[in-house]
Amino acid sequence: MELKNDLLIRAAKGELTERTPVWLMRQAGRILPEYKSIRAKLSGFKELVETPELAAEVTLQPVNLLGVDAAIIFSDILVIPEAMGLSYEMIEKKGPHFPKTLKSEADIKSLHKVEGGELNYVYEAIRLVKKELKGHVPLIGFAGAPWTILCYMIEGGGSKTFSNARKFLIQESKLAHTVLSMITDSTIKYLHNQVLAGANLIQIFDSWAGILSPDQYREFSLPYIEKISKSILDVPVTVFAKGAYFALKEMSNLSCNTIGLDWNMDVNEARVLLKGKTLQGNLDPCVLYGDRDSIEIKTKKMLEKFKGHPHIANLGHGVYPDTHPDHVKIFIEAVKAFKA
Amino acid sequence: MELKNDLLIRAAKGELTERTPVWLMRQAGRILPEYKSIRAKLSGFKELVETPELAAEVTLQPVNLLGVDAAIIFSDILVIPEAMGLSYEMIEKKGPHFPKTLKSEADIKSLHKVEGGELNYVYEAIRLVKKELKGHVPLIGFAGAPWTILCYMIEGGGSKTFSNARKFLIQESKLAHTVLSMITDSTIKYLHNQVLAGANLIQIFDSWAGILSPDQYREFSLPYIEKISKSILDVPVTVFAKGAYFALKEMSNLSCNTIGLDWNMDVNEARVLLKGKTLQGNLDPCVLYGDRDSIEIKTKKMLEKFKGHPHIANLGHGVYPDTHPDHVKIFIEAVKAFKA
Repeated sequence: MELKNDLLIRAAKGELTERTPVWLMRQAGRILPEYKSIRAKLSGFKELVETPELAAEVTLQPVNLLGVDAAIIFSDILVIPEAMGLSYEMIEKKGPHFPKTLKSEADIKSLHKVEGGELNYVYEAIRLVKKELKGHVPLIGFAGAPWTILCYMIEGGGSKTFSNARKFLIQESKLAHTVLSMITDSTIKYLHNQVLAGANLIQIFDSWAGILSPDQYREFSLPYIEKISKSILDVPVTVFAKGAYFALKEMSNLSCNTIGLDWNMDVNEARVLLKGKTLQGNLDPCVLYGDRDSIEIKTKKMLEKFKGHPHIANLGHGVYPDTHPDHVKIFIEAVKAFKA
Repeated sequence: MELKNDLLIRAAKGELTERTPVWLMRQAGRILPEYKSIRAKLSGFKELVETPELAAEVTLQPVNLLGVDAAIIFSDILVIPEAMGLSYEMIEKKGPHFPKTLKSEADIKSLHKVEGGELNYVYEAIRLVKKELKGHVPLIGFAGAPWTILCYMIEGGGSKTFSNARKFLIQESKLAHTVLSMITDSTIKYLHNQVLAGANLIQIFDSWAGILSPDQYREFSLPYIEKISKSILDVPVTVFAKGAYFALKEMSNLSCNTIGLDWNMDVNEARVLLKGKTLQGNLDPCVLYGDRDSIEIKTKKMLEKFKGHPHIANLGHGVYPDTHPDHVKIFIEAVKAFKA
C-alpha cells in the first residue's frame, strides 16, 4: 500500500523534504496514560510485547494521540537473546534481568541462531499495525546492535560500566566474535521478516556504543552493524549508536541511510563527517521538561542546525518516562510549524 | 618539604619529564587485599573516610605496594554535600544514597556553605599522609565538580540518565545556579584547606559531565569549575570531566594545568585542542583484564600517542573493583619502562 505520509522515507533517502518528519524514540509506551491503562491490566511488560493485538494497539497510540510522522513497533531489543536461548524478565522500575548469562564456552554452545519463526508474534503485530495504519504513516521496525545485545547477555542487565561485557571482549575475544556473529545472523533473519511483514524502515539501536574504546568499537561493533545494514535492501536503515561520537567519521561508510545523533553530539561536525547521510535527532529529552516557550525555542534552534541537510527530527535519546504528553505535542507541533 | 619524586608536579606544570609519571584514579581502596582487610573490620566505608589514621593508611598503600608516582587522599566527593547539610550513606555494592534530597527552595534554604572546619578529618588525614610520605611522592587532593555534586543532591544516588537533576536545570535554573554557587564556594574553602594541609596537586572530578548537552555544560558546569580552578594559586590543578568530549576546546581556556581524558577520547584531537595543557589518562580500564603481553602492548601504544606532549599516565576512568593488583603493577611498570 502506498504511503500517504512518506516524509520519513523520503528524508531517509536523502531528500530535503518540504517539512521535517518527526517521531520520538520510545514514543510507544512509557508516557501515554492510554498506554499505562492497558499496561496496568496485564501481568507485565512481556505480555504486552508478546501479544500482537496489544503490541499493535500501543504502537498506534502515538500516531493517533501525538501526531507523529511514523509508528515504531512496540517491542524490545531483548527478544533476540531470548529467541537464541537466553530468556529475560522485565523488572518494574529496574529494567531487564537475565536469570542465566553467558559465562563460558558451554553457555555459548547452548545458544542457537534465530531461524525466524520464534518471533512470529512480532511479525504478526507488524501486520496488524500495517492493516490499521492503512498507509497513513510508515512503520519503523528495529533491533539492537549485536554489541548492545551481547552486553545484556553477559551482564544480565543494565550496568554503569558494562565492565563484565568489556572484560569478555578482552579475555575471550574469539568467543565474543562467535556470539556477535550468531547475534548478527539472527538479527538479519529477524529484520528481514520484519520487512516482509511490512516494516517501512529499520532502525538499529547500539545503546551501549559509548562504553567502548574507539579501537574496540571498530573491532566488535561496527562490522556487525555493517553486515546487518548491508543485508537490508528493500527499506532504508537508520543506525543510532549512542555515545559513539568518536566513530561518526567511520559511520559515514556504513551501508545505511540515516545516522541518529544523541544530544551531546555536535550537529555542525556531524553534518561534515556524515555528508552523505540523513541525520536524525537530537533534542535533549530534558528540554521537554520545560514550558511551552522554551520547548518551542529549543526545538527551533535544533532544527536550524540541521537546515539544508536531510533530517528526521527526534530526541537525542528515548523520551523519559515522566515527560508530560502535552509537552511531547508541543515539540511535535514546533517541528511541523518549522519551515525546513 | 621538598619532593624526592616530583615527576607528577613537573609534568602538570607542562614539563616533558624524563619519564611519564603514573597513578590510577581509585588506586586507594577497591582493589588491594590490604585495603579490603582494613575495610572488613569496620562498620562501613564512611568510618574509613572519617577516621584520619585509617584514611591515611589506605592512602599510602598503593604508594608502597604498587609503586605509583603519587598518592591521592582516600575520601569521597560526597563529603561536601554532607558538610552542607545533606548527609549520605554508602550502601555496599550499590553506591551512595541520600535519605534527603533537594526538591524545593526550602530544602535549599536549609543548606549552609562549608566554612572549613566541618571537614577537619580530611585535612588531618592529609597531614598524617604527608608526615608518612616524607616527600617520597606528591599527594593529590580532590573534590567533585559542582555539577556532579548537584546531581547527587537532587537524584539522591546514581542514575542512568540523571534526568531529575537535568530537569532541575530546566525548571529551576535560578535555584540551580544558587546551589551551584554554594557548592562552589564550599569547595573552594575545602580545597584551600587541603592545600594548607599539604596537598601538592588538586584534581576536580566532573563525573557526570557527559550527561549534559554542550549548551548546558557551558552554563551549569564550566563556569563553576573555572571559579574553583582560578582560586587555587599554590598548586597545579587537574580537571577530569568524564564524557565531556564536546567541551574539550572550551576547556583549553580553564585556569587549570591538566585535563584528564577518558578512554573514548581521541588523543590526537585532544593534543591539538588542548595545546597548552598537560594531558592525563587515558588507558581503557578494561585493558587491565588482559594478560601481561596485551597490557604492555596497549600501555605502550597509549603512551606513544602522548609522546612529545606533557603527560601524566593514568586510566581513562577509576580502576574497576575486580582488577587484579598484579595487572595494575604490570601497567605501572610498563609506564616506567617507556622512554618518553
